[in-house]
Amino acid sequence: MRVRVLGSAAGGAFPQWNCGCPNCRRVRAKASGLTPRSQASLAVSGDGEHYFLLNVSPDIRSQIEAAPELHPRHARGSPISGAVITNGDLDACLGALCLRESEPLALFTTEVIRRGLVEGNTFFRTLARFDDHVRWHTLKPHAPEPLLTPAGEDSGLRVEAIPIPGKVPLHLAGIEAEHPQQNIGVLLRSPDSQSVLGFFPSVAGPSGELERAIAQTTCCFFDGTFWTDDELPALGLATRSAREMAHWPLSGLDGSLAWLASKSHTRRVLIHINNTNPILDEASDAHQRVLAAGIEIGTDGLELTL
Amino acid sequence: MRVRVLGSAAGGAFPQWNCGCPNCRRVRAKASGLTPRSQASLAVSGDGEHYFLLNVSPDIRSQIEAAPELHPRHARGSPISGAVITNGDLDACLGALCLRESEPLALFTTEVIRRGLVEGNTFFRTLARFDDHVRWHTLKPHAPEPLLTPAGEDSGLRVEAIPIPGKVPLHLAGIEAEHPQQNIGVLLRSPDSQSVLGFFPSVAGPSGELERAIAQTTCCFFDGTFWTDDELPALGLATRSAREMAHWPLSGLDGSLAWLASKSHTRRVLIHINNTNPILDEASDAHQRVLAAGIEIGTDGLELTL
Repeated sequence: MRVRVLGSAAGGAFPQWNCGCPNCRRVRAKASGLTPRSQASLAVSGDGEHYFLLNVSPDIRSQIEAAPELHPRHARGSPISGAVITNGDLDACLGALCLRESEPLALFTTEVIRRGLVEGNTFFRTLARFDDHVRWHTLKPHAPEPLLTPAGEDSGLRVEAIPIPGKVPLHLAGIEAEHPQQNIGVLLRSPDSQSVLGFFPSVAGPSGELERAIAQTTCCFFDGTFWTDDELPALGLATRSAREMAHWPLSGLDGSLAWLASKSHTRRVLIHINNTNPILDEASDAHQRVLAAGIEIGTDGLELTL
Repeated sequence: MRVRVLGSAAGGAFPQWNCGCPNCRRVRAKASGLTPRSQASLAVSGDGEHYFLLNVSPDIRSQIEAAPELHPRHARGSPISGAVITNGDLDACLGALCLRESEPLALFTTEVIRRGLVEGNTFFRTLARFDDHVRWHTLKPHAPEPLLTPAGEDSGLRVEAIPIPGKVPLHLAGIEAEHPQQNIGVLLRSPDSQSVLGFFPSVAGPSGELERAIAQTTCCFFDGTFWTDDELPALGLATRSAREMAHWPLSGLDGSLAWLASKSHTRRVLIHINNTNPILDEASDAHQRVLAAGIEIGTDGLELTL
């Protein structure tokens, strides 16, 4: 299984358009030790021919151009067969609307997430220009499904949805109820089942399902949004804490870093890192503490073979 | 009035993610004479302090980072006060959803376009997180309005909507009727009314209103989508002609180039250029013919002072 990190930042990316926090100021000034990052997404292939995106960020166009294996091989067409979408947050799904030039796609998500996207937004009619333009495949919790190409061919990869503590997307607050299938993580199994990739970009906190899922992985991308619970309020940038925004902060005795440190059976890479997170500065104590725990900090363009 | 071309390409940009046409192949290979372009948008300011976007393309995040005058000057906030939206096509408006980090914005468009965006898409609730998060201002045909900041201050610029031959956005075909306010061009007047910027990125063909509008301009950005009417069918990339897609092709006796050539009172710059258009290749006959007509070919980053 080939994996490329297309983007490693949280919603808004790094730097964020309207943010002048120390990290954003310094990365704009090209200070050493800070690297720009686009919004979180992976490209995965089991056969080196058909690629599936894990989430489709608003930055997908430039992410594709930065990844030669995703460039068209013919006058029209794309090696991208489709995508798996883990929640309805704009940073996880808005890019699907950028894949709109009459290209057949297979999209995999839960029924709840699909409905919030398609039934709530006429924009998605741009992906329904002809019969089978986009085929939606419904993921049910803990039920592995083959990742099929738009033509119905088996790519060899299997995807399994894991319900993960989260919340309804901000733009659906007040009109959609909380539901366990509003936020998922995924396990992707290679054709020989020897490699299992975990993708958990939005995790509000620990759970038994999460524990059992990560135990199966050989490599796991995990929510690295915030370092501390009060990260945004302390910078005067927002009133809500990390946990109120449904992200498990890394630091602290009950933080995700300590929990991840104990999962040494699997390669662990942080992804969906917010622009304010001190781990983005290589010289920071926080950055060093993550590495000392045996955990990697995702960067755009990172390639893995599992 | 300061103007920066944030993006000069049509929907899908140049190169386009799923296109391997000669232009896209060659620009990916960094062939000389071809320059990548992001999707069409301008940033305009009357006072060098408050900026308004003309259309908000899906590439807005990277476009902002490439334009130092649009970077935040404080811990949080943006010099971008808002945007004018000329139609509901995704390449003209999707980027508004990328300007979502609780930043107040003033958005100017017709009632028909606004309704298609806001009432048709729950995604737009991300721009309605608190009272007056986004203020929508309704543009009526030929009725100049001050471009107000979100705080209600007069930026000095005046905007006037000009109904332009066009069509309903693809994703609204079959659910919204054709309406003269589904597609507009705009005139922007400087505080002293000495400079008038025209922005006409989508023009299906000539009209008396267009003729009278361009006569008032000192500089005009104009639809440069296609060179020939059968450009896409001839490349085997689509079945519809330029005119069927509501774009007036440049070439031919009845093309827009001959029409524009006669408007020598105003500086004319082509924008919204499709990836297949031969004018994108500096060595092409088409490119030379545009320049010989006294007309410029827009590039990302071009700055003008009117």
